[in-house]
Amino acid sequence: MTATSDQSVSDAVTAGAHATEIARSGASNLRGTAGGGADPARVSAVVGAALEGIRAAIRDHEVTYEEFDAFKQWLIAVSDTGEWPLFLDVYLEFEVEKVAAATQQGSIGTILGPFWLDGQAQLDSPATLPMRDDEPGTPMILAGQVTATDGTPLAGAKVDIWHTDSDGWYSGFAAKPPAGNLRGVVRCDDQGRFEIHTRKPAPYTIPLDGPTGQMTQAAGWSPWRPAHIHLLVTAPGHRTLTSQLFFTGDPYLGNDVASADKPELTLDPQPTGNGDEVRADRDFVLEPE
Amino acid sequence: MTATSDQSVSDAVTAGAHATEIARSGASNLRGTAGGGADPARVSAVVGAALEGIRAAIRDHEVTYEEFDAFKQWLIAVSDTGEWPLFLDVYLEFEVEKVAAATQQGSIGTILGPFWLDGQAQLDSPATLPMRDDEPGTPMILAGQVTATDGTPLAGAKVDIWHTDSDGWYSGFAAKPPAGNLRGVVRCDDQGRFEIHTRKPAPYTIPLDGPTGQMTQAAGWSPWRPAHIHLLVTAPGHRTLTSQLFFTGDPYLGNDVASADKPELTLDPQPTGNGDEVRADRDFVLEPE
Repeated sequence: MTATSDQSVSDAVTAGAHATEIARSGASNLRGTAGGGADPARVSAVVGAALEGIRAAIRDHEVTYEEFDAFKQWLIAVSDTGEWPLFLDVYLEFEVEKVAAATQQGSIGTILGPFWLDGQAQLDSPATLPMRDDEPGTPMILAGQVTATDGTPLAGAKVDIWHTDSDGWYSGFAAKPPAGNLRGVVRCDDQGRFEIHTRKPAPYTIPLDGPTGQMTQAAGWSPWRPAHIHLLVTAPGHRTLTSQLFFTGDPYLGNDVASADKPELTLDPQPTGNGDEVRADRDFVLEPE
Repeated sequence: MTATSDQSVSDAVTAGAHATEIARSGASNLRGTAGGGADPARVSAVVGAALEGIRAAIRDHEVTYEEFDAFKQWLIAVSDTGEWPLFLDVYLEFEVEKVAAATQQGSIGTILGPFWLDGQAQLDSPATLPMRDDEPGTPMILAGQVTATDGTPLAGAKVDIWHTDSDGWYSGFAAKPPAGNLRGVVRCDDQGRFEIHTRKPAPYTIPLDGPTGQMTQAAGWSPWRPAHIHLLVTAPGHRTLTSQLFFTGDPYLGNDVASADKPELTLDPQPTGNGDEVRADRDFVLEPE
């Protein structure tokens, strides 16, 4: 998903079709069943407020019919490329995450994004993520411990981890990395400890050939995400932590197109002395359900 | 498009696929070419304001992840059914029309909606719109004169007219009425006068089997539009008037799902004495370009 890709399959369509299929099937719905039997007063209030927000933008900025028609064609293009999950997760999810975080104890998290996949390799810590024989990039160890808010180590905790390769591509959403590459669900030891061997990911842009990226560029906004590792940290009887970890010195920190980076989520990996390998330690605290 | 339809083709998909194809081709863009070379500051301001409007709704109403996931699935359903033109024209176009109307002289207009079609029958006034031999409904004459804002009759004016049949169905967007039914472009006489023979249209709901109608009902909002006749009134050198005409006594006046009805646009047709035929007179005033 870098701007310099030479992949023959359209970035936007490759990524979008899969993400849309997942969303359509409800498989990405980690938090329960969506819709159905909603209170009409709630639907009216929320949808009404969102519509009024868009109408206020039309009024305040005196939007023309030409711009309205361009908006219509853009929405159809988002549909055609399957970019609804991407668009929503980049431009709106961080606001939903803030609402959810207001009632969450334990470690700070951030957005899920559209690139999580179910059914990945189940591994025991210490674990090496599935990767190609010649997987490029800096070897990196991510290690830490999962505890409850009262300090109890959580045996049985799992760290579901996914990130791009060192060229900024996700397996399952781009043509190059093989299925399952740099994805895995790591079971912690009986002290809740994990040690995961992988490669350091790279910054990337959202797909520039799709309508989300085109709108971003038309507005003069940066399409870049800082390099990051996605995590879902789970333990029986505890609330799942959805998070991402970033890297000190990344040029895109503070200007994440998805507004997902937070200072508390920055790693500062240090050399291990084993070749160019680096290691970062990070503990996670989960609240009881 | 009534709620009691027995048509075998899905209302939403039949109507949506055609409207989306028109929008995608740009054929519905009566006002110029959309997009391309837009000023980044303008895009950033308008898109930023619309996004902030939605984010404010998320914050103010503490939208949950479950609701966010339902929203994602709803957007994908709008895409799947091709309802972007419908949704936008029902829930947002009236606000864009208000902006445009603020600088328009002459007759008051209203929204275009998603059901205009190019390439319809060209007729000379007095004209009878194309209809079935047994076209049901009350025979109606719509007559009047097109003048400029200085009172000059506009020879060469045309009245492009389209409306539903007496069951609430549009030709071209539903399976029942044949192509071109109750649509036509009527050329006025040398005094700008027109006389159009047709059938009185009926109130209808937006398609209830599609996501726009489902959202409307989930919010407890009325999905009905009052009966109306769509018009584009044109004359060389004059700004096109986009309008709709409604009917006194319609139970859905003042509660139009598309927010398009205005008191100034209500007709009060009177019996002509020719069977159950009725007649309504309405003049139109166009401003010079």
